[in-house]
Amino acid sequence: MAKELKDLTKRSENYSQWYNELVVKADLAEQAPVRGCMVIKPYGYAIWEKMQRILDDKFKETGHQNAYFPLLIPKSFLSKEAEHVEGFAKECAVVTHYRLKNDENGGGVVVDPEARLEEELIVRPTSETIIWATYKNWIKSYRDLPILCNQWANVMRWEMRPRLFLRTAEFLWQEGHTAHATRDEAEAEARKMHSVYADFAEKYMALPVIKGVKSETERFAGALDTYTIESMTQDGKALQCGTAHFLGQNFAKAFGVQYITKENQLEYVWATSWGVSTRLMGALVMAHSDDNGLVLPPMLAPIQVVVIPIYKTQEELDKIDAKVAPLLAEFRAKGISVKYDNADNKRPGFKFADYELKGIPVRLVMGARDMEAGTLEVMRRDTLEKETVAFDGIADYVENLLKDIQDNIYQKALAFRNSRMVEVDSYEDFKQKIEEGYFVMAHWDGTPETEAKIKEETKATIRCNPFDYKKEPGKCVYTGKPSACRVLFARSY
Amino acid sequence: MAKELKDLTKRSENYSQWYNELVVKADLAEQAPVRGCMVIKPYGYAIWEKMQRILDDKFKETGHQNAYFPLLIPKSFLSKEAEHVEGFAKECAVVTHYRLKNDENGGGVVVDPEARLEEELIVRPTSETIIWATYKNWIKSYRDLPILCNQWANVMRWEMRPRLFLRTAEFLWQEGHTAHATRDEAEAEARKMHSVYADFAEKYMALPVIKGVKSETERFAGALDTYTIESMTQDGKALQCGTAHFLGQNFAKAFGVQYITKENQLEYVWATSWGVSTRLMGALVMAHSDDNGLVLPPMLAPIQVVVIPIYKTQEELDKIDAKVAPLLAEFRAKGISVKYDNADNKRPGFKFADYELKGIPVRLVMGARDMEAGTLEVMRRDTLEKETVAFDGIADYVENLLKDIQDNIYQKALAFRNSRMVEVDSYEDFKQKIEEGYFVMAHWDGTPETEAKIKEETKATIRCNPFDYKKEPGKCVYTGKPSACRVLFARSY
Repeated sequence: MAKELKDLTKRSENYSQWYNELVVKADLAEQAPVRGCMVIKPYGYAIWEKMQRILDDKFKETGHQNAYFPLLIPKSFLSKEAEHVEGFAKECAVVTHYRLKNDENGGGVVVDPEARLEEELIVRPTSETIIWATYKNWIKSYRDLPILCNQWANVMRWEMRPRLFLRTAEFLWQEGHTAHATRDEAEAEARKMHSVYADFAEKYMALPVIKGVKSETERFAGALDTYTIESMTQDGKALQCGTAHFLGQNFAKAFGVQYITKENQLEYVWATSWGVSTRLMGALVMAHSDDNGLVLPPMLAPIQVVVIPIYKTQEELDKIDAKVAPLLAEFRAKGISVKYDNADNKRPGFKFADYELKGIPVRLVMGARDMEAGTLEVMRRDTLEKETVAFDGIADYVENLLKDIQDNIYQKALAFRNSRMVEVDSYEDFKQKIEEGYFVMAHWDGTPETEAKIKEETKATIRCNPFDYKKEPGKCVYTGKPSACRVLFARSY
Repeated sequence: MAKELKDLTKRSENYSQWYNELVVKADLAEQAPVRGCMVIKPYGYAIWEKMQRILDDKFKETGHQNAYFPLLIPKSFLSKEAEHVEGFAKECAVVTHYRLKNDENGGGVVVDPEARLEEELIVRPTSETIIWATYKNWIKSYRDLPILCNQWANVMRWEMRPRLFLRTAEFLWQEGHTAHATRDEAEAEARKMHSVYADFAEKYMALPVIKGVKSETERFAGALDTYTIESMTQDGKALQCGTAHFLGQNFAKAFGVQYITKENQLEYVWATSWGVSTRLMGALVMAHSDDNGLVLPPMLAPIQVVVIPIYKTQEELDKIDAKVAPLLAEFRAKGISVKYDNADNKRPGFKFADYELKGIPVRLVMGARDMEAGTLEVMRRDTLEKETVAFDGIADYVENLLKDIQDNIYQKALAFRNSRMVEVDSYEDFKQKIEEGYFVMAHWDGTPETEAKIKEETKATIRCNPFDYKKEPGKCVYTGKPSACRVLFARSY
């Protein structure tokens, strides 16, 4: 394996290959035997579990409850919301039969042709349709509103160019689906969850994101507004990390969900939906990691600190074991997850490389000389800087160091992104900056036609109209027609 | 809704209908628009989440890690383990296509006949095959063992007679899949997880279970041994609550998973798998609940205590609110989940009935007279007993009461089960006791033929050979042939 570690492609050589290799070598995930699907390995899943726990707490703090809706959706449901089916129905896994039987020719099992379903079922690509078919029975009066449900689930979209975490046929996500009495309340809900996502990305993933609203073309199928958070990868592309949709009354109308108001009127219900997925794992890797492997923000690292003894004799090891034991207890009492690796079947050099690859934020090394001097060697993964620190007070030191690393990773990603954001006013500059991997702020005439032409010619799409950007009018970079404000263009994953 | 509450069928009238109604009326789950599938509603899901969290902690304490494997399994994988396919392949959801398209005749969407899969994919009924196909790449040497993985996932088995929680086409579960170097280690793992399940059932679900091993007929398809925990429902049937399987080398051989031993020999790997599912929700309802609704053990109740004020004027309510506020804080500081229901749009009588239906373990009521007297009315859900208790010290009182309720529910279920267990020595007695809803301990000659005949004639199956039952030889209750010990027969869900 030591050889494998060294073999990691450099980002400067081939960023895309670096990513693909790193996800596998760092034990995050691998291709499954089923085309386009992935196996999330224990180390990768441990990071995803940390994300889940934090997000789930935030959803509950904001008044949401978890529930569970069926995996399979009757085909006819998808046709009920016209725009939704346009955007989604194309690439789905379709269940047509419900039984296998032994092959009469002895060739294993075959599909039983007599067990054909009357109506085909679709493996959910998203659950608006099945959930609104259910909400119809839950909602009669204003007293039944709001409904604030979330589910953690697997979904499938048959991807033609799958990529671990970023685009897989099956992925894990959460999808919130809420029902409200008024338009204002639903819009506020979509914006609130959008903020929850942005805070999570910045505080926990150390991922600077641009908050904004999607263009009509890039909107979720069936939404009136899609709010997005967009991060930047180290090759200067945009990665959509999470979306919250204001769905208006589209799904309520499609599924006939009405409620009786306080004034005894019958009204359609207002809806939102919002989701983040295992794609966040891809965003995390792409934003921070380097040619030595993963760089994990301490708040999401399954192991935050690793302690490695260096010794020649069992006697030396025994002494280090005894010295380190109370320190490990001190870390755990502080809620810091620590691993003491005194396994004798791997050389220290192998261990160093492996923990670098896995992105453990802080490495402590203790040798015979440190024992005498009352010191430890401390290495921080983000900068790979080493220093010698006194053993006394080391737990407090590391606790602060973890905070510092968390902050530093964020600041580094922010500085990088800011260095790669530019305003352009001519189409020539536009094309050049997109080619160089920039986030380009440019004026646009607001039409889907111009958006489509720019995409065709440059592969750049409108990522969003950012909330926190000055709103100055100007002229479209492509047509010269009037524009209300600049929007964010970039190539994307 | 108050009317609905009263309409709950009595257990003595129709136990089966009582269960079906209660699951829906108590907001645990409901039929989905997809045949055989369920929607788990927020209140039901909150109980399942508590179960998940406790079990997940126990899995991690015993050294397991979570991972995630694909939903879809290539059809050919199912044929690889001959016994496994016999037991499982029959009733599965089969994915044959990966795309829909707009109907040319305008009738919504249709399956695109050109998007037919070369090999059909099966929605996992269980994941041994896909996981062992993956483990093949993870295991080379004894250093890679053991592998101790668990996944929380949805699975599908096309049930012909679906029943909420007990038997649904789709259900949620966890499935542990472990790989070991030796037979002893794998057997010890299966028994360890079997004990984890039994402890969970007894301590948290307050559910007495019989631990034992399945007969060959009732074993998991592909296992050498299946360990089971069996509970008793109030109509005297057995309910299989969890199983742990020792799989021998069957899956390792089917998927070619070998490892190099320390002695440089090539050996097949030993396997276990183990799972519990949302079926536990059904076991919980069936064991403890009554004609007024759910009875939840405090350790799994999403709300453990509800406080209801009784008042005539806003002034009275304000006083009660102020009096109760520090008590609520005290409960929360003790980790007791409490709800204060001072909503003014429902009458107290409605609230009482609703919280009884939902199985909230402790209800506190405070009225104007209690305010004067410095008391509260305390009702415990398990016995419906009410008493008047001093306000001072009430938090400690309730904390102890919750422990008492937890224990009482368990003891009640245990006493009931023990009263319904009997040894029989003649087939006439056997048939009568089975008909009366007993767990029958009887001698059996050990042959699948006798087991099948007894099942055909009485609908009773061998639930297990219990671990903790005297091992005395005797004569088979059906054939009179020699028997090594009694085994447990019952009708089952």
